[in-house]
Amino acid sequence: MSDKDASRVIEDLFEVIESRRGGDPETSYTAQLFDKGRGAIAGKVGEEAVEAIVAALGEAPDKVVAESADLLYHLLVLWAEAGVTPADVMAELERRAGTSGIEEKKSRGGG
Amino acid sequence: MSDKDASRVIEDLFEVIESRRGGDPETSYTAQLFDKGRGAIAGKVGEEAVEAIVAALGEAPDKVVAESADLLYHLLVLWAEAGVTPADVMAELERRAGTSGIEEKKSRGGG
Amino acid sequence: MSDKDASRVIEDLFEVIESRRGGDPETSYTAQLFDKGRGAIAGKVGEEAVEAIVAALGEAPDKVVAESADLLYHLLVLWAEAGVTPADVMAELERRAGTSGIEEKKSRGGG
Amino acid sequence: MSDKDASRVIEDLFEVIESRRGGDPETSYTAQLFDKGRGAIAGKVGEEAVEAIVAALGEAPDKVVAESADLLYHLLVLWAEAGVTPADVMAELERRAGTSGIEEKKSRGGG
Repeated sequence: MSDKDASRVIEDLFEVIESRRGGDPETSYTAQLFDKGRGAIAGKVGEEAVEAIVAALGEAPDKVVAESADLLYHLLVLWAEAGVTPADVMAELERRAGTSGIEEKKSRGGG
Repeated sequence: MSDKDASRVIEDLFEVIESRRGGDPETSYTAQLFDKGRGAIAGKVGEEAVEAIVAALGEAPDKVVAESADLLYHLLVLWAEAGVTPADVMAELERRAGTSGIEEKKSRGGG
Repeated sequence: MSDKDASRVIEDLFEVIESRRGGDPETSYTAQLFDKGRGAIAGKVGEEAVEAIVAALGEAPDKVVAESADLLYHLLVLWAEAGVTPADVMAELERRAGTSGIEEKKSRGGG
Repeated sequence: MSDKDASRVIEDLFEVIESRRGGDPETSYTAQLFDKGRGAIAGKVGEEAVEAIVAALGEAPDKVVAESADLLYHLLVLWAEAGVTPADVMAELERRAGTSGIEEKKSRGGG
Protein backbone atom coordinates (compact mmCIF):
# COMPACT_ATOMS: atom_id res chain seq x y z
CA MET A 1 0.00 0.00 0.00
CA SER A 2 1.22 3.49 -0.78
CA ASP A 3 1.16 6.19 1.87
CA LYS A 4 -1.84 8.00 0.44
CA ASP A 5 -5.31 7.70 1.94
CA ALA A 6 -6.66 4.36 0.75
CA SER A 7 -10.21 5.67 0.70
CA ARG A 8 -9.40 8.02 -2.18
CA VAL A 9 -8.14 5.31 -4.51
CA ILE A 10 -11.01 5.65 -6.98
CA GLU A 11 -10.93 9.45 -7.12
CA ASP A 12 -7.13 9.51 -7.43
CA LEU A 13 -7.13 6.95 -10.22
CA PHE A 14 -9.88 8.86 -12.02
CA GLU A 15 -7.79 12.03 -11.81
CA VAL A 16 -4.78 10.25 -13.30
CA ILE A 17 -7.00 8.87 -16.07
CA GLU A 18 -8.40 12.33 -16.85
CA SER A 19 -4.85 13.73 -16.98
CA ARG A 20 -3.89 11.22 -19.68
CA ARG A 21 -6.61 12.34 -22.07
CA GLY A 22 -4.90 13.72 -25.15
CA GLY A 23 -1.57 12.30 -24.01
CA ASP A 24 0.82 10.27 -26.15
CA PRO A 25 -0.70 6.90 -27.14
CA GLU A 26 2.84 5.61 -27.62
CA THR A 27 3.74 5.97 -23.97
CA SER A 28 0.42 5.80 -22.11
CA TYR A 29 -2.04 2.91 -22.30
CA THR A 30 -4.79 5.23 -21.01
CA ALA A 31 -4.07 7.83 -23.69
CA GLN A 32 -4.16 4.99 -26.23
CA LEU A 33 -7.65 4.00 -25.05
CA PHE A 34 -8.96 7.58 -25.36
CA ASP A 35 -7.35 7.74 -28.79
CA LYS A 36 -9.13 4.58 -29.95
CA GLY A 37 -12.45 6.03 -28.91
CA ARG A 38 -15.56 5.11 -26.99
CA GLY A 39 -16.25 1.87 -28.90
CA ALA A 40 -12.86 0.44 -28.00
CA ILE A 41 -13.17 1.56 -24.37
CA ALA A 42 -16.65 0.07 -24.03
CA GLY A 43 -15.33 -3.11 -25.63
CA LYS A 44 -12.60 -3.37 -22.98
CA VAL A 45 -15.18 -2.89 -20.19
CA GLY A 46 -17.17 -5.79 -21.62
CA GLU A 47 -14.10 -7.95 -22.10
CA GLU A 48 -12.89 -7.40 -18.53
CA ALA A 49 -16.38 -8.07 -17.15
CA VAL A 50 -16.35 -11.40 -19.00
CA GLU A 51 -12.91 -12.19 -17.56
CA ALA A 52 -14.13 -11.38 -14.03
CA ILE A 53 -17.12 -13.70 -14.55
CA VAL A 54 -14.93 -16.50 -15.92
CA ALA A 55 -12.52 -16.08 -12.99
CA ALA A 56 -15.38 -16.21 -10.46
CA LEU A 57 -16.90 -19.33 -12.04
CA GLY A 58 -13.67 -21.10 -12.86
CA GLU A 59 -11.07 -22.77 -10.80
CA ALA A 60 -9.22 -19.54 -10.19
CA PRO A 61 -11.41 -17.45 -7.88
CA ASP A 62 -8.22 -15.77 -6.67
CA LYS A 63 -8.05 -14.09 -10.08
CA VAL A 64 -11.29 -12.26 -9.24
CA VAL A 65 -9.32 -9.48 -7.51
CA ALA A 66 -7.05 -8.84 -10.52
CA GLU A 67 -9.87 -9.04 -13.07
CA SER A 68 -12.09 -6.77 -10.96
CA ALA A 69 -9.29 -4.21 -10.80
CA ASP A 70 -8.99 -4.39 -14.61
CA LEU A 71 -12.77 -3.97 -14.92
CA LEU A 72 -12.89 -0.97 -12.56
CA TYR A 73 -9.97 0.74 -14.29
CA HIS A 74 -11.57 0.43 -17.72
CA LEU A 75 -14.98 1.44 -16.31
CA LEU A 76 -13.35 4.63 -14.96
CA VAL A 77 -11.95 5.34 -18.43
CA LEU A 78 -15.44 4.85 -19.88
CA TRP A 79 -16.85 7.28 -17.29
CA ALA A 80 -14.21 9.87 -18.20
CA GLU A 81 -14.99 9.39 -21.89
CA ALA A 82 -18.75 9.73 -21.27
CA GLY A 83 -18.47 12.76 -18.98
CA VAL A 84 -19.48 10.83 -15.86
CA THR A 85 -17.62 11.23 -12.54
CA PRO A 86 -17.13 8.75 -9.69
CA ALA A 87 -19.14 11.18 -7.52
CA ASP A 88 -22.11 10.83 -9.90
CA VAL A 89 -22.12 7.06 -9.62
CA MET A 90 -21.48 7.05 -5.86
CA ALA A 91 -24.38 9.46 -5.36
CA GLU A 92 -26.60 7.10 -7.35
CA LEU A 93 -25.47 4.13 -5.23
CA GLU A 94 -26.07 6.08 -2.03
CA ARG A 95 -29.45 7.32 -3.22
CA ARG A 96 -30.58 3.76 -3.79
CA ALA A 97 -29.25 2.50 -0.49
CA GLY A 98 -30.86 5.45 1.27
CA THR A 99 -34.26 4.85 -0.25
CA SER A 100 -33.91 1.10 0.03
CA GLY A 101 -33.78 1.23 -3.72
CA ILE A 102 -31.70 -1.87 -4.02
CA GLU A 103 -34.13 -3.95 -2.02
CA GLU A 104 -36.94 -2.44 -4.05
CA LYS A 105 -35.38 -3.87 -7.20
CA LYS A 106 -36.87 -7.22 -6.39
CA SER A 107 -40.42 -5.93 -6.77
CA ARG A 108 -39.63 -4.32 -10.09
CA GLY A 109 -38.17 -7.55 -11.37
CA GLY A 110 -34.46 -6.99 -11.01
CA GLY A 111 -32.15 -4.83 -12.75
CA MET B 1 -23.36 14.51 -5.09
CA SER B 2 -22.05 12.24 -2.40
CA ASP B 3 -20.07 13.80 0.45
CA LYS B 4 -18.27 10.53 1.11
CA ASP B 5 -15.20 9.19 -0.68
CA ALA B 6 -16.01 6.59 -3.31
CA SER B 7 -14.28 3.83 -1.39
CA ARG B 8 -16.33 4.65 1.72
CA VAL B 9 -19.57 4.42 -0.27
CA ILE B 10 -18.42 1.11 -1.71
CA GLU B 11 -17.37 -0.28 1.68
CA ASP B 12 -20.65 0.78 3.31
CA LEU B 13 -22.67 -0.82 0.53
CA PHE B 14 -20.51 -3.96 0.78
CA GLU B 15 -21.31 -4.19 4.49
CA VAL B 16 -25.04 -3.96 3.78
CA ILE B 17 -24.66 -6.66 1.11
CA GLU B 18 -22.77 -8.96 3.48
CA SER B 19 -25.49 -8.48 6.10
CA ARG B 20 -28.13 -9.76 3.67
CA ARG B 21 -26.39 -13.07 3.09
CA GLY B 22 -28.69 -15.80 4.35
CA GLY B 23 -31.57 -13.32 4.63
CA ASP B 24 -35.08 -13.86 3.31
CA PRO B 25 -35.11 -14.06 -0.51
CA GLU B 26 -38.74 -13.01 -0.40
CA THR B 27 -37.99 -9.61 1.07
CA SER B 28 -34.40 -8.87 0.01
CA TYR B 29 -33.18 -8.78 -3.58
CA THR B 30 -29.61 -9.22 -2.33
CA ALA B 31 -30.55 -12.30 -0.29
CA GLN B 32 -32.30 -13.62 -3.40
CA LEU B 33 -29.09 -13.25 -5.43
CA PHE B 34 -27.02 -15.13 -2.81
CA ASP B 35 -29.75 -17.77 -2.78
CA LYS B 36 -29.57 -18.26 -6.55
CA GLY B 37 -25.83 -18.79 -6.35
CA ARG B 38 -22.64 -17.69 -8.01
CA GLY B 39 -23.72 -18.47 -11.58
CA ALA B 40 -26.75 -16.20 -11.32
CA ILE B 41 -24.72 -13.43 -9.65
CA ALA B 42 -21.99 -13.62 -12.31
CA GLY B 43 -24.69 -13.56 -14.98
CA LYS B 44 -26.09 -10.32 -13.55
CA VAL B 45 -22.60 -8.73 -13.53
CA GLY B 46 -22.26 -9.57 -17.22
CA GLU B 47 -25.75 -8.38 -18.05
CA GLU B 48 -25.23 -5.04 -16.29
CA ALA B 49 -21.84 -4.56 -17.97
CA VAL B 50 -23.56 -5.06 -21.32
CA GLU B 51 -26.21 -2.50 -20.38
CA ALA B 52 -23.53 0.01 -19.36
CA ILE B 53 -21.80 -0.52 -22.73
CA VAL B 54 -25.03 -0.14 -24.65
CA ALA B 55 -25.87 3.03 -22.70
CA ALA B 56 -22.43 4.51 -23.38
CA LEU B 57 -22.61 3.74 -27.11
CA GLY B 58 -26.25 4.55 -27.59
CA GLU B 59 -28.17 7.73 -27.62
CA ALA B 60 -28.61 7.69 -23.86
CA PRO B 61 -25.19 8.39 -22.37
CA ASP B 62 -27.02 9.82 -19.35
CA LYS B 63 -28.03 6.23 -18.53
CA VAL B 64 -24.35 5.41 -18.00
CA VAL B 65 -24.60 6.55 -14.36
CA ALA B 66 -27.58 4.31 -13.55
CA GLU B 67 -26.19 1.28 -15.40
CA SER B 68 -22.76 1.75 -13.79
CA ALA B 69 -24.40 1.80 -10.36
CA ASP B 70 -26.22 -1.45 -11.24
CA LEU B 71 -22.94 -2.96 -12.41
CA LEU B 72 -21.02 -1.95 -9.28
CA TYR B 73 -23.75 -3.22 -6.96
CA HIS B 74 -23.81 -6.66 -8.63
CA LEU B 75 -19.99 -6.73 -8.76
CA LEU B 76 -19.95 -6.17 -4.98
CA VAL B 77 -22.34 -9.09 -4.52
CA LEU B 78 -20.00 -11.23 -6.65
CA TRP B 79 -17.04 -10.16 -4.48
CA ALA B 80 -18.96 -11.10 -1.32
CA GLU B 81 -19.87 -14.46 -2.87
CA ALA B 82 -16.25 -15.12 -3.91
CA GLY B 83 -14.70 -14.03 -0.61
CA VAL B 84 -13.15 -10.87 -2.04
CA THR B 85 -13.32 -7.53 -0.20
CA PRO B 86 -13.36 -3.98 -1.60
CA ALA B 87 -10.08 -3.44 0.28
CA ASP B 88 -8.48 -6.27 -1.75
CA VAL B 89 -9.47 -4.65 -5.04
CA MET B 90 -8.56 -1.11 -3.93
CA ALA B 91 -5.14 -2.35 -2.82
CA GLU B 92 -4.66 -3.98 -6.23
CA LEU B 93 -5.64 -0.74 -8.01
CA GLU B 94 -3.26 1.24 -5.81
CA ARG B 95 -0.46 -1.24 -6.27
CA ARG B 96 -0.73 -0.86 -10.03
CA ALA B 97 -0.89 2.92 -9.91
CA GLY B 98 2.08 2.98 -7.51
CA THR B 99 4.22 0.85 -9.77
CA SER B 100 2.95 2.48 -12.93
CA GLY B 101 1.34 -0.86 -13.55
CA ILE B 102 -1.47 0.56 -15.63
CA GLU B 103 0.89 2.29 -18.00
CA GLU B 104 2.95 -0.86 -18.13
CA LYS B 105 -0.08 -2.72 -19.49
CA LYS B 106 0.56 -1.25 -22.87
CA SER B 107 3.87 -3.04 -23.22
CA ARG B 108 2.37 -6.35 -22.23
CA GLY B 109 -0.35 -5.91 -24.81
CA GLY B 110 -3.26 -4.69 -22.73
CA GLY B 111 -5.22 -6.47 -20.14
CA MET C 1 -32.47 -33.82 -34.11
CA SER C 2 -33.04 -31.57 -37.07
CA ASP C 3 -33.10 -33.13 -40.54
CA LYS C 4 -32.09 -29.84 -42.13
CA ASP C 5 -28.60 -28.44 -42.50
CA ALA C 6 -27.74 -25.84 -39.90
CA SER C 7 -27.50 -23.06 -42.45
CA ARG C 8 -31.00 -23.91 -43.74
CA VAL C 9 -32.43 -23.73 -40.21
CA ILE C 10 -30.70 -20.39 -39.74
CA GLU C 11 -31.87 -19.02 -43.08
CA ASP C 12 -35.47 -20.12 -42.46
CA LEU C 13 -35.47 -18.52 -39.02
CA PHE C 14 -33.91 -15.36 -40.46
CA GLU C 15 -36.75 -15.15 -42.99
CA VAL C 16 -39.34 -15.44 -40.22
CA ILE C 17 -37.49 -12.72 -38.27
CA GLU C 18 -37.40 -10.40 -41.30
CA SER C 19 -41.16 -10.94 -41.81
CA ARG C 20 -41.84 -9.69 -38.28
CA ARG C 21 -40.15 -6.34 -38.83
CA GLY C 22 -42.80 -3.65 -38.48
CA GLY C 23 -45.23 -6.17 -37.00
CA ASP C 24 -47.29 -5.67 -33.86
CA PRO C 25 -45.06 -5.47 -30.76
CA GLU C 26 -48.06 -6.56 -28.71
CA THR C 27 -48.26 -9.97 -30.34
CA SER C 28 -44.72 -10.66 -31.62
CA TYR C 29 -41.61 -10.71 -29.43
CA THR C 30 -39.48 -10.22 -32.55
CA ALA C 31 -41.50 -7.17 -33.64
CA GLN C 32 -41.09 -5.86 -30.10
CA LEU C 33 -37.30 -6.17 -30.37
CA PHE C 34 -37.21 -4.27 -33.68
CA ASP C 35 -39.46 -1.67 -32.09
CA LYS C 36 -37.09 -1.16 -29.17
CA GLY C 37 -34.19 -0.55 -31.53
CA ARG C 38 -30.62 -1.63 -32.09
CA GLY C 39 -29.41 -0.83 -28.58
CA ALA C 40 -31.97 -3.14 -27.00
CA ILE C 41 -31.27 -5.89 -29.55
CA ALA C 42 -27.51 -5.66 -29.04
CA GLY C 43 -28.12 -5.73 -25.29
CA LYS C 44 -30.03 -9.00 -25.60
CA VAL C 45 -27.21 -10.53 -27.70
CA GLY C 46 -24.76 -9.67 -24.92
CA GLU C 47 -27.08 -10.91 -22.19
CA GLU C 48 -27.65 -14.26 -23.91
CA ALA C 49 -23.91 -14.66 -24.58
CA VAL C 50 -23.33 -14.18 -20.85
CA GLU C 51 -25.99 -16.79 -20.06
CA ALA C 52 -24.39 -19.26 -22.47
CA ILE C 53 -21.02 -18.70 -20.79
CA VAL C 54 -22.48 -19.12 -17.31
CA ALA C 55 -24.27 -22.31 -18.42
CA ALA C 56 -21.06 -23.72 -19.92
CA LEU C 57 -19.02 -22.95 -16.80
CA GLY C 58 -21.66 -23.82 -14.25
CA GLU C 59 -23.10 -27.05 -13.10
CA ALA C 60 -25.71 -27.04 -15.85
CA PRO C 61 -23.83 -27.66 -19.11
CA ASP C 62 -27.06 -29.12 -20.47
CA LYS C 63 -28.42 -25.58 -20.51
CA VAL C 64 -25.78 -24.69 -23.11
CA VAL C 65 -28.12 -25.85 -25.91
CA ALA C 66 -31.03 -23.66 -24.79
CA GLU C 67 -28.86 -20.60 -24.11
CA SER C 68 -27.04 -21.03 -27.43
CA ALA C 69 -30.38 -21.12 -29.23
CA ASP C 70 -31.38 -17.89 -27.44
CA LEU C 71 -28.05 -16.33 -28.41
CA LEU C 72 -28.35 -17.33 -32.09
CA TYR C 73 -31.93 -16.11 -32.33
CA HIS C 74 -31.05 -12.67 -30.94
CA LEU C 75 -27.90 -12.53 -33.09
CA LEU C 76 -30.08 -13.12 -36.17
CA VAL C 77 -32.33 -10.23 -35.11
CA LEU C 78 -29.21 -8.04 -34.76
CA TRP C 79 -28.10 -9.08 -38.26
CA ALA C 80 -31.53 -8.19 -39.68
CA GLU C 81 -31.39 -4.85 -37.89
CA ALA C 82 -27.86 -4.13 -39.18
CA GLY C 83 -28.55 -5.22 -42.77
CA VAL C 84 -26.41 -8.33 -42.54
CA THR C 85 -27.59 -11.69 -43.92
CA PRO C 86 -26.74 -15.23 -42.80
CA ALA C 87 -25.19 -15.74 -46.26
CA ASP C 88 -22.75 -12.87 -45.55
CA VAL C 89 -21.58 -14.49 -42.33
CA MET C 90 -21.45 -18.02 -43.78
CA ALA C 91 -19.37 -16.74 -46.70
CA GLU C 92 -16.99 -15.12 -44.22
CA LEU C 93 -16.68 -18.35 -42.23
CA GLU C 94 -16.06 -20.32 -45.42
CA ARG C 95 -13.55 -17.80 -46.69
CA ARG C 96 -11.54 -18.20 -43.51
CA ALA C 97 -11.71 -21.98 -43.52
CA GLY C 98 -10.78 -21.99 -47.22
CA THR C 99 -7.72 -19.87 -46.67
CA SER C 100 -6.88 -21.54 -43.39
CA GLY C 101 -7.84 -18.22 -41.91
CA ILE C 102 -8.83 -19.69 -38.59
CA GLU C 103 -5.52 -21.42 -38.10
CA GLU C 104 -3.82 -18.24 -39.22
CA LYS C 105 -5.44 -16.43 -36.30
CA LYS C 106 -2.89 -17.89 -33.97
CA SER C 107 -0.04 -16.13 -35.70
CA ARG C 108 -1.84 -12.79 -35.59
CA GLY C 109 -2.45 -13.23 -31.90
CA GLY C 110 -6.02 -14.49 -31.84
CA GLY C 111 -9.17 -12.45 -31.68
CA MET D 1 -16.99 -19.13 -52.08
CA SER D 2 -15.46 -22.56 -52.15
CA ASP D 3 -17.00 -25.32 -54.24
CA LYS D 4 -18.53 -27.16 -51.31
CA ASP D 5 -22.20 -26.90 -50.43
CA ALA D 6 -22.62 -23.57 -48.70
CA SER D 7 -25.44 -24.89 -46.57
CA ARG D 8 -23.05 -27.21 -44.72
CA VAL D 9 -20.70 -24.44 -43.59
CA ILE D 10 -21.54 -24.82 -39.90
CA GLU D 11 -21.33 -28.62 -39.85
CA ASP D 12 -18.10 -28.63 -41.85
CA LEU D 13 -16.49 -26.05 -39.60
CA PHE D 14 -17.61 -27.98 -36.53
CA GLU D 15 -16.02 -31.12 -37.93
CA VAL D 16 -12.74 -29.31 -38.51
CA ILE D 17 -12.89 -27.95 -34.97
CA GLU D 18 -13.52 -31.43 -33.52
CA SER D 19 -10.57 -32.79 -35.52
CA ARG D 20 -8.23 -30.24 -33.89
CA ARG D 21 -8.99 -31.40 -30.37
CA GLY D 22 -5.78 -32.74 -28.91
CA GLY D 23 -3.79 -31.28 -31.79
CA ASP D 24 -0.62 -29.23 -31.47
CA PRO D 25 -1.31 -25.88 -29.76
CA GLU D 26 1.81 -24.54 -31.46
CA THR D 27 0.40 -24.91 -34.95
CA SER D 28 -3.39 -24.78 -34.48
CA TYR D 29 -5.30 -21.91 -32.86
CA THR D 30 -8.25 -24.27 -32.28
CA ALA D 31 -6.04 -26.85 -30.55
CA GLN D 32 -4.64 -24.00 -28.45
CA LEU D 33 -8.17 -23.05 -27.33
CA PHE D 34 -8.99 -26.63 -26.30
CA ASP D 35 -5.67 -26.75 -24.50
CA LYS D 36 -6.46 -23.61 -22.51
CA GLY D 37 -9.72 -25.12 -21.37
CA ARG D 38 -13.37 -24.24 -21.06
CA GLY D 39 -12.87 -21.01 -19.12
CA ALA D 40 -10.67 -19.54 -21.83
CA ILE D 41 -13.05 -20.67 -24.58
CA ALA D 42 -16.08 -19.22 -22.80
CA GLY D 43 -14.11 -16.01 -22.27
CA LYS D 44 -13.48 -15.74 -26.02
CA VAL D 45 -17.20 -16.26 -26.75
CA GLY D 46 -18.01 -13.38 -24.40
CA GLU D 47 -15.27 -11.18 -25.82
CA GLU D 48 -16.41 -11.73 -29.42
CA ALA D 49 -20.05 -11.11 -28.46
CA VAL D 50 -18.96 -7.78 -26.98
CA GLU D 51 -17.07 -6.93 -30.17
CA ALA D 52 -20.13 -7.78 -32.30
CA ILE D 53 -22.25 -5.49 -30.10
CA VAL D 54 -19.73 -2.67 -30.28
CA ALA D 55 -19.51 -3.07 -34.07
CA ALA D 56 -23.31 -2.99 -34.41
CA LEU D 57 -23.64 0.12 -32.22
CA GLY D 58 -20.58 1.93 -33.47
CA GLU D 59 -19.72 3.63 -36.65
CA ALA D 60 -18.54 0.41 -38.27
CA PRO D 61 -21.66 -1.73 -38.85
CA ASP D 62 -19.74 -3.37 -41.71
CA LYS D 63 -17.58 -5.01 -39.06
CA VAL D 64 -20.67 -6.88 -37.83
CA VAL D 65 -20.06 -9.65 -40.39
CA ALA D 66 -16.44 -10.25 -39.32
CA GLU D 67 -17.21 -10.07 -35.59
CA SER D 68 -20.22 -12.38 -36.00
CA ALA D 69 -18.02 -14.92 -37.80
CA ASP D 70 -15.54 -14.72 -34.90
CA LEU D 71 -18.39 -15.17 -32.42
CA LEU D 72 -19.85 -18.19 -34.26
CA TYR D 73 -16.45 -19.85 -34.60
CA HIS D 74 -15.70 -19.55 -30.87
CA LEU D 75 -19.27 -20.61 -30.01
CA LEU D 76 -18.73 -23.79 -32.06
CA VAL D 77 -15.53 -24.47 -30.10
CA LEU D 78 -17.49 -24.02 -26.86
CA TRP D 79 -20.13 -26.48 -28.14
CA ALA D 80 -17.43 -29.03 -28.98
CA GLU D 81 -15.88 -28.53 -25.54
CA ALA D 82 -19.27 -28.93 -23.80
CA GLY D 83 -20.36 -31.97 -25.84
CA VAL D 84 -23.04 -30.06 -27.75
CA THR D 85 -23.49 -30.45 -31.53
CA PRO D 86 -24.82 -27.98 -34.10
CA ALA D 87 -27.70 -30.45 -34.67
CA ASP D 88 -28.70 -30.14 -30.99
CA VAL D 89 -28.91 -26.36 -31.20
CA MET D 90 -30.63 -26.34 -34.61
CA ALA D 91 -33.24 -28.81 -33.30
CA GLU D 92 -33.87 -26.46 -30.37
CA LEU D 93 -34.24 -23.48 -32.73
CA GLU D 94 -36.61 -25.46 -34.96
CA ARG D 95 -38.60 -26.75 -32.01
CA ARG D 96 -39.19 -23.20 -30.84
CA ALA D 97 -40.13 -21.93 -34.28
CA GLY D 98 -42.40 -24.93 -34.76
CA THR D 99 -44.23 -24.41 -31.50
CA SER D 100 -44.21 -20.65 -31.88
CA GLY D 101 -41.79 -20.77 -29.01
CA ILE D 102 -40.03 -17.60 -29.98
CA GLU D 103 -43.23 -15.61 -30.07
CA GLU D 104 -44.20 -17.21 -26.79
CA LYS D 105 -41.11 -15.72 -25.21
CA LYS D 106 -42.88 -12.41 -24.96
CA SER D 107 -45.47 -13.79 -22.58
CA ARG D 108 -42.82 -15.33 -20.37
CA GLY D 109 -40.99 -12.04 -20.19
CA GLY D 110 -38.25 -12.56 -22.73
CA GLY D 111 -35.11 -14.49 -22.89
